[in-house]
Amino acid sequence: MPHFAVKLCYDGTDYVGWQLQPPGRGRSVQGELEAALARLAGGARVAVVGAGRTDAGVHAAGQVASFDLPREFAPTDLVRALNGMLAPDARVLVAWNAPPGFHAQRSARGKLYRYVLDTGAVRHALRRRYAGYTPFTLDENAVREAAAVFVGRHDFASLQSSGGSVKTSVRTVRRSEAAFVDADAAVRSLVYEVEADGFLRKMVRSMVGGLLAAGRGQATPAMLGRALLARDRRAWPAPVEACGLTLLRVDYDEMLE
Amino acid sequence: MPHFAVKLCYDGTDYVGWQLQPPGRGRSVQGELEAALARLAGGARVAVVGAGRTDAGVHAAGQVASFDLPREFAPTDLVRALNGMLAPDARVLVAWNAPPGFHAQRSARGKLYRYVLDTGAVRHALRRRYAGYTPFTLDENAVREAAAVFVGRHDFASLQSSGGSVKTSVRTVRRSEAAFVDADAAVRSLVYEVEADGFLRKMVRSMVGGLLAAGRGQATPAMLGRALLARDRRAWPAPVEACGLTLLRVDYDEMLE
Repeated sequence: MPHFAVKLCYDGTDYVGWQLQPPGRGRSVQGELEAALARLAGGARVAVVGAGRTDAGVHAAGQVASFDLPREFAPTDLVRALNGMLAPDARVLVAWNAPPGFHAQRSARGKLYRYVLDTGAVRHALRRRYAGYTPFTLDENAVREAAAVFVGRHDFASLQSSGGSVKTSVRTVRRSEAAFVDADAAVRSLVYEVEADGFLRKMVRSMVGGLLAAGRGQATPAMLGRALLARDRRAWPAPVEACGLTLLRVDYDEMLE
Repeated sequence: MPHFAVKLCYDGTDYVGWQLQPPGRGRSVQGELEAALARLAGGARVAVVGAGRTDAGVHAAGQVASFDLPREFAPTDLVRALNGMLAPDARVLVAWNAPPGFHAQRSARGKLYRYVLDTGAVRHALRRRYAGYTPFTLDENAVREAAAVFVGRHDFASLQSSGGSVKTSVRTVRRSEAAFVDADAAVRSLVYEVEADGFLRKMVRSMVGGLLAAGRGQATPAMLGRALLARDRRAWPAPVEACGLTLLRVDYDEMLE
């Protein structure tokens, strides 16, 4: 059967997350995409594999998914047909004829996530949908230093939410960088970007929970380093809210574009 | 009575606009603010004056409003109290004790609006709320040239929507600049900023309608210049959708900050 890959963006606000849920449990991106593909497949179920299982409320600018279809489609026709069936809060940006054996999740070499955390006295009405928020002024040097704690190969068990089904919690973080920008006269924003070979459940939001603790002076980078080594969920600060998180990019060895 | 001014931001998506509407016609920002202020005033009606009557779906990052209250409030207490009553899609950013005679609309020296118009094959799911959209690739030089047509003192009757109640349609545009940015790999965005002593109803969205016509090759800057001189609504291209427009700033001679 012809094999395809698509790059998707979605506004996660009104989804229960990427992953298909039992009937009645709400709209998932995978479910909406599978429903649209089933119509293109003449009613047959089309199983879709996503690169990252983003949680409820998490956004994507570059999610990748792969699937088979019972007949050939020109990639541009596939983009048009799917966007004609999906709701406006999920869009297919590009489609490809994928090489045999390409698997959106298992073939992924790495992923890039961004988390935006606004700080300031007031939570800005135009930013609340795509940025987390804390009223506290953060020590920016402390946050930047804390971001460096994650770089390298570590067991991230302390930053893993329960409910994950992975065999190992060891991951390699290639880049972990915190920057600060003035998003508005009254809003100072932490923009955190992290790239790794893979992520555990709620791992990025737990990382930002750690950065927030560092920025508030509740934990030093050394304390976070020890909490990471503890491999114990209770040693680590709570994860931050979902809406600030976006899956920006998934990388593959095979070039898809 | 003590006189106050506030700076507000709001996400216009779920409002019928700034202006108070008859009961049953939906949520207006003015109406929500007046309802919150009435509670602070012990139930008395508080009339609020807004600097700009933004239309349904138009956003604000720096709307200014003025009103009287029957007793003194510390500005920081007023911010906190109002934000405790308003919905999260409208926030008071700052409050001031306003000078006597300050009137958010009549004292305004000028306003700055921004319109964002995305172009590209697909309307991006994460941008649809705060950017207009056209699938057409625009001639960027033609758009930049067309933006210059508006600068200066002109009768903008061609760009005025019906339903306005102003005495004159002459306005002075101080700055009118179109820039282009890559908002995403698949999204090229026109970012248009325009500053004037005042704006007519749907004037900015009509301006961008003209820029869009220029960018698509449907009108030259010279043709737009003539359509402006015609002072006839029918001579001008249609206004673009509301969601791309944001009132960024209102300027006053008296310093409020």
